[in-house]
Amino acid sequence: MPTHDNFELAEASPVTLGEGQFLVKNLWLSVDPYMRGRMNDAKSYAEPYALGEAMTGGAVGVVEQSNNADYPVGAKVLHMGGWREACVFGGGLTPPAGMPPVKLPELGVPDQHWLSILGMPGGTAWFGLLKVAEAKEGETVFVSAAAGAVGSTIVQVAKAKGMKVIGSAGGKEKCDWVRELGADAVIDYKAGPVLPQLTDALKSIGENGIDVYFDNVGGEHLDAAFATAREWARFAICGMIDVYNDFKAQPMQYLPRIIACRISIKGFLYPDFMGQLPEFNADMAALIQSGKVVGRETVHDGIESAVDAFLGLFDGSNMGKMLVKL
Amino acid sequence: MPTHDNFELAEASPVTLGEGQFLVKNLWLSVDPYMRGRMNDAKSYAEPYALGEAMTGGAVGVVEQSNNADYPVGAKVLHMGGWREACVFGGGLTPPAGMPPVKLPELGVPDQHWLSILGMPGGTAWFGLLKVAEAKEGETVFVSAAAGAVGSTIVQVAKAKGMKVIGSAGGKEKCDWVRELGADAVIDYKAGPVLPQLTDALKSIGENGIDVYFDNVGGEHLDAAFATAREWARFAICGMIDVYNDFKAQPMQYLPRIIACRISIKGFLYPDFMGQLPEFNADMAALIQSGKVVGRETVHDGIESAVDAFLGLFDGSNMGKMLVKL
Repeated sequence: MPTHDNFELAEASPVTLGEGQFLVKNLWLSVDPYMRGRMNDAKSYAEPYALGEAMTGGAVGVVEQSNNADYPVGAKVLHMGGWREACVFGGGLTPPAGMPPVKLPELGVPDQHWLSILGMPGGTAWFGLLKVAEAKEGETVFVSAAAGAVGSTIVQVAKAKGMKVIGSAGGKEKCDWVRELGADAVIDYKAGPVLPQLTDALKSIGENGIDVYFDNVGGEHLDAAFATAREWARFAICGMIDVYNDFKAQPMQYLPRIIACRISIKGFLYPDFMGQLPEFNADMAALIQSGKVVGRETVHDGIESAVDAFLGLFDGSNMGKMLVKL
Repeated sequence: MPTHDNFELAEASPVTLGEGQFLVKNLWLSVDPYMRGRMNDAKSYAEPYALGEAMTGGAVGVVEQSNNADYPVGAKVLHMGGWREACVFGGGLTPPAGMPPVKLPELGVPDQHWLSILGMPGGTAWFGLLKVAEAKEGETVFVSAAAGAVGSTIVQVAKAKGMKVIGSAGGKEKCDWVRELGADAVIDYKAGPVLPQLTDALKSIGENGIDVYFDNVGGEHLDAAFATAREWARFAICGMIDVYNDFKAQPMQYLPRIIACRISIKGFLYPDFMGQLPEFNADMAALIQSGKVVGRETVHDGIESAVDAFLGLFDGSNMGKMLVKL
């Protein structure tokens, strides 16, 4: 588990912009669970951070100075510069994560939605539910970490598409909130073992099993999903936050049900779906405009709060997407 | 673990055939791991056996008496009547497993191959490797229980299709035999932990990971497969013999690799592929005729030996398909 001692708030020297360069002043910073994996010196789907490097990641900002006609002063951009108040791009500089800043499309949504419901967490939810797990109207969906950035979107999108949803979250406050999001049943994993609660939740909504499981946590939740899967169930595996900080063996009892139920389990990453972003953006924008899906965010103020926001992801203190507002 | 006390060898009264009926004298009986699951009073993919019922399952026999023109005396048939010396069909009787006897096609192969390499185990291997896991030429395949009925077919088919194969088996004799079948590397799971052996085996064949895992056992082998999977690896899950007799939790450490490597895991059952039997029969018959794939069988003699043959499946005493010859 990371601590404040792993981080430093450093001051950079003022810069003079070179040809083609522009300065983006950040408005919103994203803190995400996958960043924890990048703090290990181990090969994973994202490169490890170098010591002393800024915590690169998603951010939304506005161009404040510019020597680049493509990025005029006042343009709002989404970029991967991460946890800093400002960042210089262009003029031959390699952008963080190799992704040049993207100008925000005019969809009439709040800026920070591009880091949440229209960004990586929202896309992870939408692609995972509809493309990876191929969830369909009338099916029963179980989602763990249902009060998180991805989970809260899953609950809303699944309901908007005519599915039944059981969400798992930790503590009464979050569970109440997941119910408000529209979940048909909610289980509190902090109140007791997952499997008996999931079995009861299924009974309470008149179902005898799950068709889809969207996994954000692994461990006990995943095993309970195997235990309650119907034939031909599909699992989309997007995170195992239970084991990011503690890579130890998890006891799994119900794996053999994979065979008899012909369960299909797929791991996936958001970047694999970049080719389908227009379809996602169009559908999600329509869901937002119809009021069926609402961007849910927990906001911390000021760059000094970035570490607290990040650590909060692991003690479960966020509801919806965790953001830092500058 | 079953014992001889769970079984009884019973004598049936002689029958007089009714209209449309015919008597099949069995030549070969199949004993299969899935039968263990049917001995539990629990819903699984096959119905539980009733107490006192014959152990129904695959058998090959010859029609000895007949009042049915479709099944003349001398015709050889594959049926699901299971562990008995003879069985009556037709004339309105419900056949075991709802499957009427099938007359054996003339492919010029030994009768018992219809219970092994051209039957359920061979089909399980072929469909699992090529249709479920979509293994392709040049890929690296790991298979557990590689000396078993399914595993020994996987090794041979994978080699015939231009793949590299690592097989796992228990004990020197079996490992030598799996190497003879054509495996590029073999690990002896009884000699030590699976993962370090699998890692060494990969190095020895110049590969840094597996593309396909064909799971017959679950547990430690499955975890080692997660640990060594390449990106976009596919796992076909067909059996978990490690847990059939002892349904306890298995410690799994490498499940989180599902995400970063986008591993896809699918459970499957042979009967789901009945629509593709002609494709399987044609390809497998060609592989047999070319000499690239050879039916491998361990044979017990006489119906009295059926229980020993069956129990042998769980102490690992068979090489290839376990059969009883009457």
